[in-house]
Amino acid sequence: MVLPALERFDLEADRLPNRWYNVIPDLPRAPEDFVDPATSRPVDSAYIDRRLVPALAAQDRSMERWVSIPPEVLAQYRVWRPTPLYRAHALESELDTPARIYFKFEGGSPSGSHKLNSALAQAHYAKRAGIKRLITDTGAGQWGSALAIAGALTGLEVVVYMIRSSYERKPDRRNLMETMGAKVLPSPSEHTAVGRQILAADPGTPGSEGIAASEALEAVLANPDSRFSMGAFANHVLLHQSVIGLETRAVLEDLGEEPDHLIASVGCGSNLGGFAFPWVADRRAGADIKILAAEPDACPTLSRGEYRYDYADATGQGPLVRTMTLGHEFVPPAIHAGGLRYHGAAPLVGMLSHEGLIDAVAYRQREVFAAGAMFARLTGLVPAPETAHAIRAVIDVALRCKSERRASTIVFCYSGHGLLDLGAYERWNHGLLEDVEDLDQLAAETSVTS
Amino acid sequence: MVLPALERFDLEADRLPNRWYNVIPDLPRAPEDFVDPATSRPVDSAYIDRRLVPALAAQDRSMERWVSIPPEVLAQYRVWRPTPLYRAHALESELDTPARIYFKFEGGSPSGSHKLNSALAQAHYAKRAGIKRLITDTGAGQWGSALAIAGALTGLEVVVYMIRSSYERKPDRRNLMETMGAKVLPSPSEHTAVGRQILAADPGTPGSEGIAASEALEAVLANPDSRFSMGAFANHVLLHQSVIGLETRAVLEDLGEEPDHLIASVGCGSNLGGFAFPWVADRRAGADIKILAAEPDACPTLSRGEYRYDYADATGQGPLVRTMTLGHEFVPPAIHAGGLRYHGAAPLVGMLSHEGLIDAVAYRQREVFAAGAMFARLTGLVPAPETAHAIRAVIDVALRCKSERRASTIVFCYSGHGLLDLGAYERWNHGLLEDVEDLDQLAAETSVTS
Repeated sequence: MVLPALERFDLEADRLPNRWYNVIPDLPRAPEDFVDPATSRPVDSAYIDRRLVPALAAQDRSMERWVSIPPEVLAQYRVWRPTPLYRAHALESELDTPARIYFKFEGGSPSGSHKLNSALAQAHYAKRAGIKRLITDTGAGQWGSALAIAGALTGLEVVVYMIRSSYERKPDRRNLMETMGAKVLPSPSEHTAVGRQILAADPGTPGSEGIAASEALEAVLANPDSRFSMGAFANHVLLHQSVIGLETRAVLEDLGEEPDHLIASVGCGSNLGGFAFPWVADRRAGADIKILAAEPDACPTLSRGEYRYDYADATGQGPLVRTMTLGHEFVPPAIHAGGLRYHGAAPLVGMLSHEGLIDAVAYRQREVFAAGAMFARLTGLVPAPETAHAIRAVIDVALRCKSERRASTIVFCYSGHGLLDLGAYERWNHGLLEDVEDLDQLAAETSVTS
Repeated sequence: MVLPALERFDLEADRLPNRWYNVIPDLPRAPEDFVDPATSRPVDSAYIDRRLVPALAAQDRSMERWVSIPPEVLAQYRVWRPTPLYRAHALESELDTPARIYFKFEGGSPSGSHKLNSALAQAHYAKRAGIKRLITDTGAGQWGSALAIAGALTGLEVVVYMIRSSYERKPDRRNLMETMGAKVLPSPSEHTAVGRQILAADPGTPGSEGIAASEALEAVLANPDSRFSMGAFANHVLLHQSVIGLETRAVLEDLGEEPDHLIASVGCGSNLGGFAFPWVADRRAGADIKILAAEPDACPTLSRGEYRYDYADATGQGPLVRTMTLGHEFVPPAIHAGGLRYHGAAPLVGMLSHEGLIDAVAYRQREVFAAGAMFARLTGLVPAPETAHAIRAVIDVALRCKSERRASTIVFCYSGHGLLDLGAYERWNHGLLEDVEDLDQLAAETSVTS
C-alpha cells in the first residue's frame, strides 16, 4: 500500500499534559533582571503590578520546573489538544531524503495557531484577578485572534493594537477579532501619545511590534482596570507554550524516535520556546539535538542581532531587557510573515541563542513561499508564512541529510495555518511576490523611528 | 468546576468506519431513473461512462447497504478523522434551554469542511481508472477547495467552474484552489458555449450552481480524458459523506444518547445526507427522530420547491432527475452562503423530503449571521454561513424545548469553518449585511436565465 502524504500519531486524551514545563531551572545561568528605564534599577513589584497580571508576573520569576495547569484551562485545551503529530511522507519522497520528517500541528486550534495555548491561560488568570480588560499588540494577528477568542470565552474585554501593515493587508484577522468582540486599532494610532508622535514623524510607517507594544503599554497605564498581555517575549508565555513540546516528546517516545533536529520559526520565540525547550536539559547534558530557529532575512534577530540590554518596545516605554536585539528603533519591512517582525527575541530564547544552544538561519520571502506552496500541494495544508520559514529550514536540513547520506529525525513545529494569508499566496501563485534583496538596502529604504 | 464552552468526545482512531453506509436499501421505494433529455429514456451506460468515473456511477446504483472504504482513502481520512463531537454547553447556557446540544465538527479537515470526505474518494477512483482530469462546479468554493486538495494529493488535474458571485466575493477560496494547483474559472465563463450564451443574455448574472454544472458538463464532453465530479447531488457523494453520521452515531452510543433532532444545512444535501441518513431506518421503524434541513429563504428548495422531474443543471445539459426543485432556471440571489445556492436537492434528499421523512425550515440571511456570530463568541469557532443556517435552526429548536420544558437531544452537523467568509462577518459586525426580505420580490429583482 502506498503511504499517505501524512501519517498521523496521536497522544491519548488522558495524556494531555497537566503541567507546564519551565526551562529556567535548566538554563546555564539565571536570567538577568528587567530594568526600569526611569530608575535604571531592576523593575520593582509596583512597576510590575501596574502592568501585568500578578499570577503571570509570578510565573515569569518562578524557579519551579513544573507548574500545574489550572483545570479550567485544561478543559479549554481539550477542545483541540492533544494536537496531532504527523509524519510528512510526501515531503520526504519529494526531497528523496533519508531523513524522517515529523511535525507537530498547532494549526488546528480555534484561533488557527499555537497562540491560543497562552491566551487561554492569560485570560484565566486575569479574570481570576478581577481584571476587566487585557490590552495587547499583534503583528500578523495570530496573537490578537487568540486573545480575542480567549477574551470571548472568559468574559474579558480585549483591545488589540495591530501593526498597520498587517491591519491593512490582513483585514480578515481584524474581522476575526471583531467577530469575537475585541476592539482592534491600527498601530501606530492616534489613540496614544506615542502613536501620534510616530505618525507625525513618519505618516507612512508600516508599524512594528515594538511600536504596537509601546502603544499598548501607554494605554494600560491610562486604564487602571487594564493590564498588558503579551503573545510572546515573557517567560510565562514560553511556559504556557511548553504543552507543544511536552506532547511532541511523549508521542516521539511512543514511536521510539529521538529527534536530531528541532526546528521552528522565530519572531520573538514563543513557538520555538514552547516546542524545543523540553529538550534543553538533554542538549546541555550532551545529547546530540540541534535546535534551529528559522527567521526572516528582513528581521534576523538571532542571526544578526546583538546580545545586550535594550528596550522591549520601540519607544522606551517598556523595561530594558537583556536579549538578542536588532535595536529597538529597527522597523522591519512589511513582509507577509507579520508575526516575525519584532526587533528582539524573548529573553530566554536570546540567552540560549547567545550561549550557542540555539542555531539560527534567515530566509528571504520568496524562498519561504516557495517552500510553503510546495508543502501545501504535497500535504493539502496551507501553512502560515511564519510556519513556512520553519518548512524552508526543514527542507534545507533534509537535503543536507540527503547529500551526506545521513538518516536523521527532523521534527518541526507547524505553528499555524495560512488560511488568512491566502492573499500572499495569491501573489506568490501569480509571480508577484516581492523579495527582500538585502537587509542593509532595506534598512535604508524603510522607515526607522527615532 | 465551571463547564467549558465546549466539551469534546472522541471516537478512538481504530473505530474510524471502514465502510460507508448506503441508504438506498432503507428507502421507502427505489429511486427513479435519471432520464437523458436527448432520448427521453433512462440514461444508458454510454451516457454515464462518458461523463462519470465508472466506480462512482456503480456506487450510484448500488443496492448494498455497506460499501468498503478503500485503504488508500481510509489512510487519507486518518489525517483529520475521526472528527470530534462537541457538546455546546455555552450555547445551552446562553439559551437557558433544557436541551442538550451536540455537534459533529467537520470544520477541521484540510479543506475546512466535510466536502473532503467525498473529494478524496472521487480522486482515488478517478486516478485508479486512469482519468487525467476532474472537472467540477463549486458554489462557495468549499467543494472546489476539497477537490483541488484531493487532486493535489492524488496527482490529478482539477478544473473548477466557480459561480461568479463567489469567485468575486471569495477570492481566498480561489486562491486556495490555485495554491493547490487547480484551474479556477468564474461561471458563467467565456470558455463554454453555455457560458457565452448566458453572458450574452445577462452580462451581470451572479451565476448559479446549475449554470456552473452546465459549463462543467460541456467541458467534460469536449475533453475525453476528463470526467465530471460532483460535490453533492449524486448518490455516491452522500454515500461517502456517511462517515459523518456513522462516527456521530458511534460516539452518541458511547454516551448513551439518542438524538431527538438531527439538524444540518441543505444546499443540495451532502452534509445532511451524510450526517442523518444512518438514522433513516430507525426513523422508518418508528423511532422519534426528527431530521431537519435548514436552508436559505433565498433558495428554499425543500420548503417551497416541487417534487418532479427537472434538469440537474441550469441549461438542460444534464439529465432529467426526479427530486425537489425550484426549477432549473431559478438563479438564487447572491447570498453569502454560496454553497446553498442550488435549485434542486440531491435526489435521495428530495425523495425523503417528499415522503415526509425530512422536515425543512428556511431562514433569511441576517438571522443566520446573528446565529453564526453568537455561536462564534460563545465557542471561539467561526462557522461557515452554510453551517450558520443549521445553528439558527438549532437555536429555534432549543428555544422551543425551553418553552415546552422538554429535555431533548439536539445534534447538528458543523459542516465547515467560516475563516474564508470573514468578509461577510465584517459586514454583519458593522451592520451592513443585507437581508433578503421576500423571495418573490427577489426573484423579480434577480436575473433568471432562460
